[in-house]
Amino acid sequence: MKIKIINPNTTAAMTDSIWQAAVGAARPGTEILCVSPATGPASIECYVDDYLAVQGVIAEVLKGEREEGADAYVIACFGDPGLQAARELTDKPVLGIAEAAMAMATVLAPSFSVVSVLDRSVKVTQDLVLAYGKERFCRSVRATGLGVLEFADREKGMRALEAQSRLAVEQDGAECILLGCAGFVDFMRALNESLGVPVLDGVVPAVAMAQAMVDIGLRTSKHNTWKYPEPKAFVGFEHLDINGEGV
Amino acid sequence: MKIKIINPNTTAAMTDSIWQAAVGAARPGTEILCVSPATGPASIECYVDDYLAVQGVIAEVLKGEREEGADAYVIACFGDPGLQAARELTDKPVLGIAEAAMAMATVLAPSFSVVSVLDRSVKVTQDLVLAYGKERFCRSVRATGLGVLEFADREKGMRALEAQSRLAVEQDGAECILLGCAGFVDFMRALNESLGVPVLDGVVPAVAMAQAMVDIGLRTSKHNTWKYPEPKAFVGFEHLDINGEGV
Amino acid sequence: MKIKIINPNTTAAMTDSIWQAAVGAARPGTEILCVSPATGPASIECYVDDYLAVQGVIAEVLKGEREEGADAYVIACFGDPGLQAARELTDKPVLGIAEAAMAMATVLAPSFSVVSVLDRSVKVTQDLVLAYGKERFCRSVRATGLGVLEFADREKGMRALEAQSRLAVEQDGAECILLGCAGFVDFMRALNESLGVPVLDGVVPAVAMAQAMVDIGLRTSKHNTWKYPEPKAFVGFEHLDINGEGV
Amino acid sequence: MKIKIINPNTTAAMTDSIWQAAVGAARPGTEILCVSPATGPASIECYVDDYLAVQGVIAEVLKGEREEGADAYVIACFGDPGLQAARELTDKPVLGIAEAAMAMATVLAPSFSVVSVLDRSVKVTQDLVLAYGKERFCRSVRATGLGVLEFADREKGMRALEAQSRLAVEQDGAECILLGCAGFVDFMRALNESLGVPVLDGVVPAVAMAQAMVDIGLRTSKHNTWKYPEPKAFVGFEHLDINGEGV
Amino acid sequence: MKIKIINPNTTAAMTDSIWQAAVGAARPGTEILCVSPATGPASIECYVDDYLAVQGVIAEVLKGEREEGADAYVIACFGDPGLQAARELTDKPVLGIAEAAMAMATVLAPSFSVVSVLDRSVKVTQDLVLAYGKERFCRSVRATGLGVLEFADREKGMRALEAQSRLAVEQDGAECILLGCAGFVDFMRALNESLGVPVLDGVVPAVAMAQAMVDIGLRTSKHNTWKYPEPKAFVGFEHLDINGEGV
Amino acid sequence: MKIKIINPNTTAAMTDSIWQAAVGAARPGTEILCVSPATGPASIECYVDDYLAVQGVIAEVLKGEREEGADAYVIACFGDPGLQAARELTDKPVLGIAEAAMAMATVLAPSFSVVSVLDRSVKVTQDLVLAYGKERFCRSVRATGLGVLEFADREKGMRALEAQSRLAVEQDGAECILLGCAGFVDFMRALNESLGVPVLDGVVPAVAMAQAMVDIGLRTSKHNTWKYPEPKAFVGFEHLDINGEGV
Repeated sequence: MKIKIINPNTTAAMTDSIWQAAVGAARPGTEILCVSPATGPASIECYVDDYLAVQGVIAEVLKGEREEGADAYVIACFGDPGLQAARELTDKPVLGIAEAAMAMATVLAPSFSVVSVLDRSVKVTQDLVLAYGKERFCRSVRATGLGVLEFADREKGMRALEAQSRLAVEQDGAECILLGCAGFVDFMRALNESLGVPVLDGVVPAVAMAQAMVDIGLRTSKHNTWKYPEPKAFVGFEHLDINGEGV
Repeated sequence: MKIKIINPNTTAAMTDSIWQAAVGAARPGTEILCVSPATGPASIECYVDDYLAVQGVIAEVLKGEREEGADAYVIACFGDPGLQAARELTDKPVLGIAEAAMAMATVLAPSFSVVSVLDRSVKVTQDLVLAYGKERFCRSVRATGLGVLEFADREKGMRALEAQSRLAVEQDGAECILLGCAGFVDFMRALNESLGVPVLDGVVPAVAMAQAMVDIGLRTSKHNTWKYPEPKAFVGFEHLDINGEGV
Repeated sequence: MKIKIINPNTTAAMTDSIWQAAVGAARPGTEILCVSPATGPASIECYVDDYLAVQGVIAEVLKGEREEGADAYVIACFGDPGLQAARELTDKPVLGIAEAAMAMATVLAPSFSVVSVLDRSVKVTQDLVLAYGKERFCRSVRATGLGVLEFADREKGMRALEAQSRLAVEQDGAECILLGCAGFVDFMRALNESLGVPVLDGVVPAVAMAQAMVDIGLRTSKHNTWKYPEPKAFVGFEHLDINGEGV
Repeated sequence: MKIKIINPNTTAAMTDSIWQAAVGAARPGTEILCVSPATGPASIECYVDDYLAVQGVIAEVLKGEREEGADAYVIACFGDPGLQAARELTDKPVLGIAEAAMAMATVLAPSFSVVSVLDRSVKVTQDLVLAYGKERFCRSVRATGLGVLEFADREKGMRALEAQSRLAVEQDGAECILLGCAGFVDFMRALNESLGVPVLDGVVPAVAMAQAMVDIGLRTSKHNTWKYPEPKAFVGFEHLDINGEGV
Repeated sequence: MKIKIINPNTTAAMTDSIWQAAVGAARPGTEILCVSPATGPASIECYVDDYLAVQGVIAEVLKGEREEGADAYVIACFGDPGLQAARELTDKPVLGIAEAAMAMATVLAPSFSVVSVLDRSVKVTQDLVLAYGKERFCRSVRATGLGVLEFADREKGMRALEAQSRLAVEQDGAECILLGCAGFVDFMRALNESLGVPVLDGVVPAVAMAQAMVDIGLRTSKHNTWKYPEPKAFVGFEHLDINGEGV
Repeated sequence: MKIKIINPNTTAAMTDSIWQAAVGAARPGTEILCVSPATGPASIECYVDDYLAVQGVIAEVLKGEREEGADAYVIACFGDPGLQAARELTDKPVLGIAEAAMAMATVLAPSFSVVSVLDRSVKVTQDLVLAYGKERFCRSVRATGLGVLEFADREKGMRALEAQSRLAVEQDGAECILLGCAGFVDFMRALNESLGVPVLDGVVPAVAMAQAMVDIGLRTSKHNTWKYPEPKAFVGFEHLDINGEGV
């Protein structure tokens, strides 16, 4: 099967790191396609970033449908930008990494916390916690105070993630930690060892869950809400050629 | 004061009708600027439409800040597309019409229903009902089954809106009706008379509330979540020139 | 237009201060009528106070309807005492100041805290947060520990309000502060400057919102729940002369 | 022990019927004091009625404390008017009949419906369902469309109650019926037999629960929220002589 | 009347202590039967313990129905193990002690905390808080860190309970304390005196409430969910002889 | 990898049918072990059935840990009996089929309904919907009125499932159907074709998700709530030999 992973930001180093993590989670026979759209922000830390990333997500889903024969899609940013829009454009399963991480976390532990980037980014994650019905499971969303790209300094990033994760476990009562940025996948293993609770990024669970859903032949419901968009003019987006049924 | 109303779709006839309604709600001394962005869908009926409208909303808020001296913004689509992004780009009040309509509805009545366009559009509104904490007040979100632009046939539109509104009142127990599309503002008065409960569109409440907030000098909190975006590269959006503090 | 503001307690100094704030928020052409009922507690700090204030609120709404030609009503105590009863007695908009403050706060910021008077008064406010569907937006309701009338010592009051507001911002994550007592309106401007987040009292938002609702001709739904009371005997309240339709 | 039951309306026939039901629920050795206040509405069907009843409830609790040596109080109207105020005035248990009925209903069945009087009265009950955390247990609040005093025509009342109760069981999935008016206690036994699900009024459960709480020496928490009111002037309520600690 | 109390664990000393508390709460004429099942864990501190206790609870309810003529049942473990199963096996009222304690606590105070045994046991209680709709009333569930049987050292137990209860009152804002283990009934009186807020165990409220419900003739609804189990084979449980209607 | 599926009832035909479905969902290299415990009810339709099944679930998990080297566990009854207990006994992932079905359903569709067996069985499922935070996604839980074993008559079963599923889609607005009994797996394919919305049983999603979680090395958090039970006496369960760490 072919799983297409869309890193909605345009930072190639993050796309690489996501690709490596995804390949690690892929089974023999699963082809991982990992891309960054032609348009979008360098990192996603606020609502402006989040919304401006969606056009690229849409373009990549359409390409996946028309040219690449993808069997499932993963949106690899912990804000799950454009998730419901992506689902309208395909009948293959589409997974957000926050969604997949939370779905698996609640199987592994009765509660979790998310450790995120900037203070301001916390609410994007809280919106998702609510959207996915995880309010009662989420003990806290904590910020490291570092921007997405500051984690290139791995030592500094590790210290910040570990400090906040430890507070989440010890003060907030979290029994599982979710790393709230696709760029954090490199830190997962080390944190897992040091913290004594499961530490999940989102890319690996999303790839695993996508494979699982393709394995058993599941398809997105095209019955009503997430059916293909009505054909209409999209001024400025003509190149996307969105035109209804089967897009 | 100057209030900028952004119709996030590109249908000029709807922008005109919104402009007329807004002017009717404006006080002497309030200047109404009502625009449709250069890019966007012809109508907003699903998540793809909703997300592809946001780039235009962002462009228009930035223009309002830099060139037009707007004192407040209204996003005139009942899905309130890009609302939190818009708030990051200005310290002036930004109102969604769904948000404003629901805020006033709960002052006027203990419960309301929303009458919307297509069946598939219902969930966009339900997402907002949840986001604004109105679950306990909203009796139902009903669809007419007609697309946004089908309401150009006013008679057909009126019949559909009236039928669903009546069901909302009689079967669902709504004591106030919200018209769930900016294009419905023309139907408001007639429905108000025939239904015996308050019928609100969203444009008029949003303009009135925006004026009220400007009157008393309120500003969006730039403390954390909705502060200006971090400066970064936005590939493909360079023309928007988003660059942080005061953008 | 004429807006009638009812301070439900009997302390004239508070009525004066509310009147001044309201006049500051009124537009040219808006007449502000600000009264304290003939009966009621000197301050409202608990449920007994709250309930004993309602008879006065009812009397003043009836007078506003029958003699004064009021176009809208504001109940100027942060417990919004008797709000639903007042709405039964008129078809003009009736606003509670807590309700108005919370409605505007959630436009300005993703979260708020309320700073209130005594510890015991906290729950009255929490009841309203629940009643208005604001649980997810309200980070905390904090008490200064001072009674309503102790704020006559402005320096002491200011210190207490500032201390609790700062804790709300720094510890509880509030991005907007609501002053939980009509008597706090005098402190608003100074706190706004020192805290770096929007600080709202309730009187000013309520007056502004009342004007907005009158501007656009909104009326309370008399369809069912808030229609005029059924005619009946009210022993001991004959002087109020409540007698149904149009009271 | 002595249990004081306060019928908050002034209709003597209802006070009698409540008294009879309460006596039936009292154990040997329990003295039932059942009163109607000197002031109040003839029946309680809306918020105005509800609030104007509270002054009488307060007066009767104070009298119970100072003159009658009551060991517990029951507020015998299904809107539980003034419940939190009453609790501030005594350290004896105070029960609302809606509260007691719902507390017992959820022991007897996984879900209940309330059958009430007028359509407009439904929301008063819905407010209580929310206040007591019973949203998930309450399948519906149904109205008979009859006013409180119309149930004096017992046959008509019985037909209306039975019809709505049956709909609650068959359509709404209720497995227990609560009679949402203190005046309905006379219908309880007959409905119990005809419906095949438990049918509870509120007076009988409240008396039974009050006895239980007195038996085991429970007292209202005077720690913070429900401690005695702060001493202050109550203009127009001087005869009540509310003056703090131990009132 | 005869009330059967089932201590679902097999520690005789706890059964004795529960029996003594129950007898203290029983009125003249109430016979208290207090048993420990033939099977079960020595103490109940986690989900395995909880589930393995249920077989014994079921056996004792069946014996109560068939041989002992019980009029009501109390499950005397703060996890209320098997409560809904027990209700299927009888039409007499069945009360869990957590359920009864929470029902009375919310009459006595606007908020409560539960003080429990091990850290791991906290979630069992949180599950019940949710199941009973008490999320908004419960300020915290605190653990002493001691196992159930460690409370045999009364001094150590008292210190731990008092410390956590005090934190619940002072830091979490609880105005009532519930002792989250049937074995804590001995500490109730002493804590009541030292803490200044009502302290409730669960056994005493459950016995009192059971008596109250028997007094007024209430029966479990056998309409649907909690009717007698369908007759079927129960391999390994043949000795229980569960066989439908009236079991 | 080896996945152990526990059918908690003792009906061999159902175990066979579950086994077949599971094998169909297994990848090459996955060994499916599908068992029915030595003890338990013939079918699970109420709380008594549910609780009496748990001892067998516990026994099979312990055997899986000690003798069979299972890598993950699936509890194959839509009531997910004993799920949290099972998680205490192993650090391998344990999945309930209701949990897995709901986790995948919300990826495929914005809403689902569950079609279940008897009317009385509905609440067991509703309890799970609440426990998993799926209240906002679940449109309804519908009963066919047939007992678990009546579905051996496949034609009758199919008719009943199809009728209720269709009502769920057309009246309740479900966009995905979950078959609320492990025995329904045989009907999945046919319903999928006839209904036009995704139809999921629980066994297939659970096996797929278990494989996914094993693939990426996830383990149950043994940090606090779900760590191994404390060692203690379990009277009557000595043969299970539950004795703490690593059991």
